Amino acid sequence: MPRLPPPTQMVLRDGYSEFHYGQPDPDLLPVEEMRRAAGTALDTFGPDLLAYGAPEGAWPLLAWIQERVRDREGVAVALHECIGTAGNSDAIDQFCTLFTRPGDVAIVESPTYHLGLRILRDHHLDLRAVPVDADGLRLDVLDATLARLNREGKPARVLYTIPTFHNPTGVNLAMGRRHELVDMAVRHGFLILEDDVYRELVYDGASPASLFSLAPRGTVLRMGSFAKSLAPGLRLGWLDCSADQARRFADGGLRDSGGAPSFTAAMMVAALCRSGDFDAHVSRLRAAYRERRDALATALARHLPDGCTFSTPGGGYFIWVTLPAGLDAEAVLRAADAHRVAFVPGGRVCLDGRGRDCLRLAFSLMKPAQLEEGARRLGAAIAAAA
Amino acid sequence: MPRLPPPTQMVLRDGYSEFHYGQPDPDLLPVEEMRRAAGTALDTFGPDLLAYGAPEGAWPLLAWIQERVRDREGVAVALHECIGTAGNSDAIDQFCTLFTRPGDVAIVESPTYHLGLRILRDHHLDLRAVPVDADGLRLDVLDATLARLNREGKPARVLYTIPTFHNPTGVNLAMGRRHELVDMAVRHGFLILEDDVYRELVYDGASPASLFSLAPRGTVLRMGSFAKSLAPGLRLGWLDCSADQARRFADGGLRDSGGAPSFTAAMMVAALCRSGDFDAHVSRLRAAYRERRDALATALARHLPDGCTFSTPGGGYFIWVTLPAGLDAEAVLRAADAHRVAFVPGGRVCLDGRGRDCLRLAFSLMKPAQLEEGARRLGAAIAAAA
Repeated sequence: MPRLPPPTQMVLRDGYSEFHYGQPDPDLLPVEEMRRAAGTALDTFGPDLLAYGAPEGAWPLLAWIQERVRDREGVAVALHECIGTAGNSDAIDQFCTLFTRPGDVAIVESPTYHLGLRILRDHHLDLRAVPVDADGLRLDVLDATLARLNREGKPARVLYTIPTFHNPTGVNLAMGRRHELVDMAVRHGFLILEDDVYRELVYDGASPASLFSLAPRGTVLRMGSFAKSLAPGLRLGWLDCSADQARRFADGGLRDSGGAPSFTAAMMVAALCRSGDFDAHVSRLRAAYRERRDALATALARHLPDGCTFSTPGGGYFIWVTLPAGLDAEAVLRAADAHRVAFVPGGRVCLDGRGRDCLRLAFSLMKPAQLEEGARRLGAAIAAAA
Repeated sequence: MPRLPPPTQMVLRDGYSEFHYGQPDPDLLPVEEMRRAAGTALDTFGPDLLAYGAPEGAWPLLAWIQERVRDREGVAVALHECIGTAGNSDAIDQFCTLFTRPGDVAIVESPTYHLGLRILRDHHLDLRAVPVDADGLRLDVLDATLARLNREGKPARVLYTIPTFHNPTGVNLAMGRRHELVDMAVRHGFLILEDDVYRELVYDGASPASLFSLAPRGTVLRMGSFAKSLAPGLRLGWLDCSADQARRFADGGLRDSGGAPSFTAAMMVAALCRSGDFDAHVSRLRAAYRERRDALATALARHLPDGCTFSTPGGGYFIWVTLPAGLDAEAVLRAADAHRVAFVPGGRVCLDGRGRDCLRLAFSLMKPAQLEEGARRLGAAIAAAA
């Protein structure tokens, strides 16, 4: 037997400061909680845990999600306005299959979650970028883009957006813009695919209201996920939408044939959530990541050369750094290897040539002392490339 | 909180003889094996079990699968000629996304696994049916179909086939036809998507060689699954193909973003398989389903009216019954409700108007005595409709 590759996607390099990966710290994954949940789920559900799941998703989990959305967001989601997914990547993929055709226009943010773009591209969508500023998506640019698309006879089909603790900038879409964006979607007739993966990871106060909660049903499909709040390997999430849209997912060939995605895992997580372990785990994550965010922000303020700027996000995984004018993040990355520090250069997460003077740092993976050391290395790499 | 719908896809009606569902008997699902496997996997892999999995799939499971394919089928599959899937429905769906475009021609069997067709349709493929006889796919008709498609300037892109313990007919593609089919695919340049979900459920001797094992790499994508050999709720399978094809799957946006599908479940099943529980479980399934197949065949011979015919399959879940000339299976189904027996009328699993005088019976779900009673009811329903 040949030596196997590592089972996980992330392969850390010894001694490196890895700001690159937007992934949870393995030490913060809920191993003991899952052990309890697996046992409870097998006791409670027996063979039902292993059968084909309902095409809508694992109802015991969906019911818990709906209660949480009601209690935390004040939004009443009817039972059939929600569908289980295998995480947000799966939700994007199935949305594209069932709600788009090749050539349809998808508007995306610049910068954005770059791996999400690859899913849209696999479905041959025509991607158009709209920039993000400190208040989120630039609605003036979006408005001009929509007008241009209408003139071209190619009205936008969908907007893919991360309005809350945006990846990579960490910003929240301002509340006024949230309302205005929903209005634009209604007026122009495009769908909003809201990636809401960081909602639970809030470090100061409460997360802002989702676009889904502000919109008439049918305008926003909101993708929630357990990837960041619990564990990405479960491949587990959900989607809030209209009853008609949920029915289109449930009636699609994939679910008609295979039933609920990640069904066994979903039933285990239903047990985990009902036990109270979810709340306790998320509280632990918030405390740990808040401490890391603060540690990195403090260290960056100390170690970044003059002319670098960044803002401190209220949640999520990322700090977005802007380099001094004229400095290219790819050049910094080349210099960074000698300092054993890695990050994502901003140009790689933009579709439109923006972001070259920016870089994305994830603070999720490292402990405070490692973040401090990483910031020191990053500062040295930037100085070396300047 | 409203009353929840059932968590599982299958909802059995009390007192009914349910030949309808092609699903495992809940009493034969490996609840205790999964309990052990979850514990072992958490002990062995720790947080790796919950992290993003490698985009190719859970290597500990893929390695076990490759050893099994080598030992049972005598086929050496290199490490990178295999990819983990979330079951065959997911494999069909992802194949369509990454290897086809809307309007591409897909050839399917008539009859076939009808829910698979719905996945192909969601990807807007142009479906063409080729009939199946007692030796499997009619290659003379396939040849004529390919010639016609070439004349139309629409060469076939893919053939979706279930050559081993075919759903719904139970037949195996004859060995000579297997070789000939592979040759035709090479000659005409279409891909074969081989649905091999029933391979482990063999009741007499050994399963025939897969098309994948007979073909040059790159011609056949063989979909294997744990849905029938273990549990469908896991949403777990794999796909054997060429290294280039596997790379296309692994490099696709969905896996680049989300990693391996059903990753936590896959790592648990890796532990289950390595423990020896898989072999023991499959032996138990073979014995149980062999007994059921025999019980149903014996009961059908006793209870079906004159003019009905059926053949006894060597594996899988299904017996395919042909009604006396002129009798419509839909009419029998209407009569069947009064007798509390249900099945799938053949016309529903054919794309081309065939199968109206046929019906599919699954013997997987019921115990021998229930099968006997079901055959009696079916005979009465057929007599009532005649």
